[in-house]
Amino acid sequence: MTTKDLIAQIHKKKSFLCIGLDTDLEKIPTYLLSEEDPIFSFNKAIIDATHQFAVAYKPNTAFYEACGRKGWKSLTKTIDYLNKNYPEIFTIADAKRGDIGNTSSMYAKAFLQEMGFDSVTVAPYMGKDSVEPFLQFRDKHAILLALTSNEGAFDFQTLEIDNTTLYKKVIEISKDWKNSERLMYVVGATKAEYLAEIRKIIPDSFLLVPGVGAQGGSLVDVCKYGMNKNVGLLVNSSRGIIYASESSNFPEIAAAKAEVIQREMAKQMENL
Amino acid sequence: MTTKDLIAQIHKKKSFLCIGLDTDLEKIPTYLLSEEDPIFSFNKAIIDATHQFAVAYKPNTAFYEACGRKGWKSLTKTIDYLNKNYPEIFTIADAKRGDIGNTSSMYAKAFLQEMGFDSVTVAPYMGKDSVEPFLQFRDKHAILLALTSNEGAFDFQTLEIDNTTLYKKVIEISKDWKNSERLMYVVGATKAEYLAEIRKIIPDSFLLVPGVGAQGGSLVDVCKYGMNKNVGLLVNSSRGIIYASESSNFPEIAAAKAEVIQREMAKQMENL
Repeated sequence: MTTKDLIAQIHKKKSFLCIGLDTDLEKIPTYLLSEEDPIFSFNKAIIDATHQFAVAYKPNTAFYEACGRKGWKSLTKTIDYLNKNYPEIFTIADAKRGDIGNTSSMYAKAFLQEMGFDSVTVAPYMGKDSVEPFLQFRDKHAILLALTSNEGAFDFQTLEIDNTTLYKKVIEISKDWKNSERLMYVVGATKAEYLAEIRKIIPDSFLLVPGVGAQGGSLVDVCKYGMNKNVGLLVNSSRGIIYASESSNFPEIAAAKAEVIQREMAKQMENL
Repeated sequence: MTTKDLIAQIHKKKSFLCIGLDTDLEKIPTYLLSEEDPIFSFNKAIIDATHQFAVAYKPNTAFYEACGRKGWKSLTKTIDYLNKNYPEIFTIADAKRGDIGNTSSMYAKAFLQEMGFDSVTVAPYMGKDSVEPFLQFRDKHAILLALTSNEGAFDFQTLEIDNTTLYKKVIEISKDWKNSERLMYVVGATKAEYLAEIRKIIPDSFLLVPGVGAQGGSLVDVCKYGMNKNVGLLVNSSRGIIYASESSNFPEIAAAKAEVIQREMAKQMENL
């Protein structure tokens, strides 16, 4: 998907909500467990109920790998379902991959070409040749970890380095990589004030923002510091939406939760 | 596997060779492609032919994920085969994972518990709570990326930070994490002289060393700067062994290549 199409969808739906499909067999309604593929059944129900309020879905691969081959099948079915039924939706494989060049190429092909995701999250530690293979596909994107939303973000990402911090250095250096216009960045909402600094380096890039809701970040602050003229944000919510109900009405409750966020987003977009 | 058992195996075989199972359908002998599971058939043949010269096998997950569900099955069959037939061998899932705490737990369970690998490689960028979940299993290990063997290693890992470098900071800080005695570290052979500095910080830890052979590193230098009283090294070779022949004699040729390296290793161990 082109960035232009993503922006058009955001304006059409008045939403920049990304729903995280962190689907865990221990957390989904128990009556689904008798189905042939409970994870896919859950995802399908969530997607069908919430797609008008969301512009992106983000399965985290850990939850699928934890179920082995079966999980991989559920993931494949989920992305196939999205691509077939909601081709306007932006899809993110939250895989946080990164390896030496030829190996990163294998990951890039797996997620962007074979499975057909629009984007994949990538870890920066191994540098340029570990990330560039994810940037070689037209209309596909790599979403680079810059400042994550967890406690451990302060172990290395915020260390001072050359009169700046590591996460800013990651963003600055990555701008010179080949096809860097296909880069987006992960910036956690729990540190919304950092977004202002980041916008000085990358005013136009899209930011994937986890940590609103369950992890304590505020949507208003994220918009205040991080929104640009094209919105430029994908704000993720996972648990707060998909696990809002444990009973058979979970799709409706998820939709209601997603709509609340979408309305807040529409309000924030009025400031554009 | 305990570190003690790994050391015992190294002394018994006079080898600290790790063979990388970077099994690529485009590189294995073409006659295998008619088999039901060509990747597993190739791995089995390599393992059966080389196990007396190697103490560890390291499938890189990218090569398996690139084949989707089928690839995941090949990976499962490979680790099952190793655990059943060669339980004395140390196994490494070269997955370079790392995510927020509860998500890292899913990866840790998948590789260390469900699949039964002895260890998994982990990326440090997201810090303590992204790595500790991999350290909670008795007799299992996380192998943390410190200084990798690729060009991109110089983008961030060697940046100066607090009068040291990022990769040394990663090692130093990780020593304080819970169950850090279960940590090993990836240190590329292409920068063997760096090993001396690293040994000042972690004299006793095991180092997984990629980049000998195809990537240009020297075994003699790695041993000179990196070997400790318990050897403390796992030196990886992938392409130089597994793709040494493209015909049906590939297992014998792989064994011959592995034996050459094992003999060099035995010679280096005489210096202990």
